[in-house]
Amino acid sequence: MSTRVSEATIRRQVRFYECDAAGIVHFSWFFRYMEEAEYALWRSAGVSNAPRKDLAFPRVAASFDFRHPLRYEDEFDARIQIVEIRTKTISYSCHLTLAGKVAATGTMTVACVHLEPGQPMRATPFPDAIVDRFEAVPATDSQP
Amino acid sequence: MSTRVSEATIRRQVRFYECDAAGIVHFSWFFRYMEEAEYALWRSAGVSNAPRKDLAFPRVAASFDFRHPLRYEDEFDARIQIVEIRTKTISYSCHLTLAGKVAATGTMTVACVHLEPGQPMRATPFPDAIVDRFEAVPATDSQP
Amino acid sequence: MSTRVSEATIRRQVRFYECDAAGIVHFSWFFRYMEEAEYALWRSAGVSNAPRKDLAFPRVAASFDFRHPLRYEDEFDARIQIVEIRTKTISYSCHLTLAGKVAATGTMTVACVHLEPGQPMRATPFPDAIVDRFEAVPATDSQP
Amino acid sequence: MSTRVSEATIRRQVRFYECDAAGIVHFSWFFRYMEEAEYALWRSAGVSNAPRKDLAFPRVAASFDFRHPLRYEDEFDARIQIVEIRTKTISYSCHLTLAGKVAATGTMTVACVHLEPGQPMRATPFPDAIVDRFEAVPATDSQP
Repeated sequence: MSTRVSEATIRRQVRFYECDAAGIVHFSWFFRYMEEAEYALWRSAGVSNAPRKDLAFPRVAASFDFRHPLRYEDEFDARIQIVEIRTKTISYSCHLTLAGKVAATGTMTVACVHLEPGQPMRATPFPDAIVDRFEAVPATDSQP
Repeated sequence: MSTRVSEATIRRQVRFYECDAAGIVHFSWFFRYMEEAEYALWRSAGVSNAPRKDLAFPRVAASFDFRHPLRYEDEFDARIQIVEIRTKTISYSCHLTLAGKVAATGTMTVACVHLEPGQPMRATPFPDAIVDRFEAVPATDSQP
Repeated sequence: MSTRVSEATIRRQVRFYECDAAGIVHFSWFFRYMEEAEYALWRSAGVSNAPRKDLAFPRVAASFDFRHPLRYEDEFDARIQIVEIRTKTISYSCHLTLAGKVAATGTMTVACVHLEPGQPMRATPFPDAIVDRFEAVPATDSQP
Repeated sequence: MSTRVSEATIRRQVRFYECDAAGIVHFSWFFRYMEEAEYALWRSAGVSNAPRKDLAFPRVAASFDFRHPLRYEDEFDARIQIVEIRTKTISYSCHLTLAGKVAATGTMTVACVHLEPGQPMRATPFPDAIVDRFEAVPATDSQP
C-alpha cells in the first residue's frame, strides 16, 4: 500500500480575469487557489473530492492573511498541508509564495456531509477509503 | 390568466470584483448580467429557471458586441427581450445601457433538456407551464 | 455634520453562477457578499472605496465560518459591523442570515495603502475624510 | 527572426468553482477559457497582452455555440486560431474539445485602444511589435 499523503504544492499563474480594478488579484481568488491545491492533494492520494450521490465535502471554515499582492502573469506556488484529521473534518494550512516570498497564508476546514434530497446536510464520518490515504504533517514540519 | 411576458429590465451596479486589471468590467461578466436579466424575466412570468430533478435549461449559444466599457460603481440597465420561441429553445436579445447609451448588445439561446443520471442531456420540449407564460416581442418592437 | 456610521445590512439573492456542482453557493462567494456589504457601508457614509490615483484599500485578512449552505434563489441578509478602527486598518465582522438563521459569520480587515507606479504598496493612514465618517460599534452591541 | 504565430492549444481541467448548480461548467467560463488560450497564443509569440500605461486590448465581440457540457474534472483542449488581422482588431476562432469531440466553438475580436486618464478609450493601430508576430491561418486550414 502506498504512503499516506500530507501535503501538495501546485504552481499556478495569475489569470487576467482574477485581477480587480486595483490591478491585483481579488482576495476572493486566494480561496480558490487554496481549493485547487486541495484538489491536487486529494488527486495525489488517489481520491476525488467530487460530490457523489450521497456525499459531499463542503467547507466549514476558511481564512487568509494577505501579505503581498499578486499581479497578472505572476507565477506563484500554493502549498497545502493537512494539519489535523478528525472523524468528520480535515483541516489544512496553505502558503502562497511568489519568488520565495510568502504572499499569503490560509487555513481551511472541510467536512464530510451526507446528502439526502430535501434534507439538511448532516455531518458524517469520512469514508475509510479517503482518510486512510491521508495523515497530518508532524507539528514540527508544518510551516509557521 | 395573466398576460404573457416578453421582456424585462433590471438595474444593476458594477461590483468591484467584476472589474479586471484594465479597470473595466471583464467581458465574461456581461454574460452573467444577461443571465440575471433572464432570471428577472422568468420570475416576472411566475416561473423558475432553477434546475429540477429531471429538467434543466442550459445555454446553447451566447454572444455579445461590446461598444463602451462599464466601470466600478456604474449603474446600468440590462433589458432582455424574447425574440423567438421554438419547441425546445427560447432566444433572447439583450441591451445594456449606461445613462441612455448602449454599452453592449447580446444574444442568448436557452434549451430545455431532460436529465437522466449517467445519460447525456437530451433536448426536450419546454413544459407548457413555462412556454404558455411567454411570447416573443413583435419583430417591429425589438430593439435594433 | 451627519452621524458616523458603524454598520450596514444588504439583502441579496443567490445567483445561479454563484452555486457550485454540489448545488450550494461556493464558499469563495461569501467573501464577495461581505465585500458588497462593506461597499454599502461606505456608501451610506458618503465615501467611496474605489481605488484612486494614489490610494487603494486592499484586504489584509479575511475569514468565514460556514454553518448552513445557501442555495440558488435564496434571499439572505448580509450585515457588516465595524469592530475596530486603527490608523491604517479597519476591521469588520459580518453575519449572513437566511430567514433569521445565521448561515455564516465572517471577519475582514482592510488597509489603506499608498500606490506609486513600480513601487510596492505601502500602508498609510486612512484620510480623515474617510475615518471621520466611521466609528466602531460598542463592544456590547456587536453580534456574538 | 522566428516564425509568425497563428494558433495555440492549451489543455485545461475543469475546476470545481467553474461548475454551476446544474453540475456543468457555467457558460460564462467558456469565454474565460478562450481568453486563456489567447494568452497562451500571445505568449508563444513572445508578446504580452497585459494592459500597459497607455494601451489595452479589450474585447469588442465574443460568441460561443455550446454543443456538449463540460463537467468537474473534465480535461479538455482549447484551440485558438487567428482568423483575421486588421489594423486595429484581431479576430479569433476557438474550439473546445473533450476526448476528441467538439464541446463548443467560439469567436472573439480584440481591439487595441489608447488609454488616457479621464478620456474614453480610443481604438488605435496595434503596435508593429505585436502584429508582426502574428498571421492569420490560411482560410483552408481553419477549423469548420
